[in-house]
Amino acid sequence: MGSVERIKAVAHRLLKARHAGYQLVVVVSAMSGETDRLLSLAKGISAHAHGRELDVLLATGEQVTIALLCLALETFGCPARSYLASQVKISTDSAYNKARILSIDSGPICEALQAGKVVVVAGFQGIDVEGNITTLGRGGSDTTAVALAAALKAEECQIYTDVDGVYTTDPKIVPEARRLDQVTYEEMLEMASLGAKVLQIRAVEFASKYGVPVRVLSSFGEGAGTLIKPEDNTMEQVQISGVTANRDEAKFTLVGVPDKPGIASAILGPIAQCNIEVDMIVQNIGSDGTTDFTFTVHRNDYERTMGILKDVASQMNPRQIEGDNKIAKISVIGVGMRSHAGIAAQMFGALAAEGINIRMISTSEIKISVVVDEKYLELAVRTLHSAFGLEQGPQISAPLERSR
Amino acid sequence: MGSVERIKAVAHRLLKARHAGYQLVVVVSAMSGETDRLLSLAKGISAHAHGRELDVLLATGEQVTIALLCLALETFGCPARSYLASQVKISTDSAYNKARILSIDSGPICEALQAGKVVVVAGFQGIDVEGNITTLGRGGSDTTAVALAAALKAEECQIYTDVDGVYTTDPKIVPEARRLDQVTYEEMLEMASLGAKVLQIRAVEFASKYGVPVRVLSSFGEGAGTLIKPEDNTMEQVQISGVTANRDEAKFTLVGVPDKPGIASAILGPIAQCNIEVDMIVQNIGSDGTTDFTFTVHRNDYERTMGILKDVASQMNPRQIEGDNKIAKISVIGVGMRSHAGIAAQMFGALAAEGINIRMISTSEIKISVVVDEKYLELAVRTLHSAFGLEQGPQISAPLERSR
Repeated sequence: MGSVERIKAVAHRLLKARHAGYQLVVVVSAMSGETDRLLSLAKGISAHAHGRELDVLLATGEQVTIALLCLALETFGCPARSYLASQVKISTDSAYNKARILSIDSGPICEALQAGKVVVVAGFQGIDVEGNITTLGRGGSDTTAVALAAALKAEECQIYTDVDGVYTTDPKIVPEARRLDQVTYEEMLEMASLGAKVLQIRAVEFASKYGVPVRVLSSFGEGAGTLIKPEDNTMEQVQISGVTANRDEAKFTLVGVPDKPGIASAILGPIAQCNIEVDMIVQNIGSDGTTDFTFTVHRNDYERTMGILKDVASQMNPRQIEGDNKIAKISVIGVGMRSHAGIAAQMFGALAAEGINIRMISTSEIKISVVVDEKYLELAVRTLHSAFGLEQGPQISAPLERSR
Repeated sequence: MGSVERIKAVAHRLLKARHAGYQLVVVVSAMSGETDRLLSLAKGISAHAHGRELDVLLATGEQVTIALLCLALETFGCPARSYLASQVKISTDSAYNKARILSIDSGPICEALQAGKVVVVAGFQGIDVEGNITTLGRGGSDTTAVALAAALKAEECQIYTDVDGVYTTDPKIVPEARRLDQVTYEEMLEMASLGAKVLQIRAVEFASKYGVPVRVLSSFGEGAGTLIKPEDNTMEQVQISGVTANRDEAKFTLVGVPDKPGIASAILGPIAQCNIEVDMIVQNIGSDGTTDFTFTVHRNDYERTMGILKDVASQMNPRQIEGDNKIAKISVIGVGMRSHAGIAAQMFGALAAEGINIRMISTSEIKISVVVDEKYLELAVRTLHSAFGLEQGPQISAPLERSR
């Protein structure tokens, strides 16, 4: 939600959908810049504002938008009604600033829909069991929308963003990147957590759990967007849906630590205690009674992690501690990967052909990630995008080839 | 409530009061300029925004302040808790934009006070029986404060304003104007409705109804302010508490209308139907079967009223319709007036001595108002302020003189 002009544009769009015969429940976020304005007010009071009162403050952003959107709809002659989290009992736990939705009372919304109204609900916010205001964390409005769609058994949950869908990769890196017509929840989860900042991860998890079809659309254009939905037969046949890149990580290697049980927890325990999240972990097989232990953390945690490792080193005497915060993580993602051998070989081969050295590998059921030097990020993405033919439409393999 | 700096200053002040041993419940209004900002957003959507959604919008102003004030208190090490109208069930009727408070659930507040917290409540807002957000109209935070004080049986309700108390008259007109240590509810009501814009009239009515002592103080200084309280023996002995002036009215006279029953309603009926409020009404005794009928309306309604009167005139044939929107209403107010004869004579005499012609007179139990030409406003106020010795302290008459 941008300016007042944006709100009017959204109201017009809703009118169109209404004339097409749909009953509409709309979840809105704060107007563009509003959350930052509120946060800066809080910072003016306290550098580390958090907890209950911060949520009371931030929740006003969405409250302003629901009121303005309803005023706009009413001005255009369309009956509308706004709802705060407290008014439709969007119950959450009490984890202020990052609460999780537990349940929603769809009763008042259904009544308003029956009465012919467009329902406008404040996203991002909830109430706990004592009636305190909570918020769901940045991007929480997506989660509110999916949760409401689940509670109302909506036909589809449409999420309007500043992009017109989910792409095979970042179009800024690969101009040939193609908008996907559809992806599975699992693919979207991997893409979201790997740097395709289209949708909040929790929103996708929620959609997956309740089987809510979610469509990502542009707030500005008219395209069909990307439908995120359960896996089906057609989709399975696509090997790779996308390539993602991420430069948020830093890598550490402890060279020559004792190759004995408990070594991983001795290294990672102190790091976890400092609330530093570890992403990839690789331990090579040792030969001379020692081994190399490698892992990645968020790049912001580089200095802190290095400090912790220097303490840890005093006990386990590694030959060397190597830190590298100039890395990139490149991943290929696709549910089809499960039933097709050779994706990994194809990926590593393509990168090698361009002289890109792979520093680390990790895999999941529907994804292969490699760590390379940061300078190769764009080249690696372009290489893989082309190697898997993503600039063309879906590659449908003959059903016979499927091994399931 | 002004800027973030103001909020910190208020927090400091609250800490002091807390250290002095008081349990504190604080009602806040929106930050300076915030309500206007929200209104201009609404205007951007719809020129005549009103009703339910406008209240949803406006209520965010106070929500921002309660959160920031609690964050400030917590930063200073003082436990605090904010409450929205919905959280302490400030129940109102459903008259959006100008709702009236019906009841308050003081339970949660008492619990928080017991737990040693400073309680911060959003002023100006309420909820109706269906849980819709309502607002109380401009200045509504005063009413919230008084209503809460009544519900909690507070020792005193302190209202912090941009003036340091209630004055005998406007110090801009009479530099010798004196701050009153105390006034009665009735006097304050007359003063508020006559132009001393210190407190919302409804707040005073509420205080009077429930006997809540209200103290008007400066947000900036340290003075004792003015205590507004029930009448008592000492206060009765003061004849006149203050002089007020008001240039918001316009006067109409229908000269020579038939002197027969029903004439007043024939004139005023059509005006009331257009929702124009009439303040003073005077009808002189007729002599030749006709009479002169004079009344005042708000100056903004001057043109509309004149239009209506021209229609009315076609039925009752007055000799003339006189309109004057260059008038001022000057009033002297005091509960002591009830027990002292001669106030009116003294007032009219003082004005006559300065050559100020009185165009209209109206009286109530504790007030005498006159209408004069607007050009005499300042002179009339200064003359009466001096004639009743208001620049000196209270004039205590001997009890024997009292006629009650």
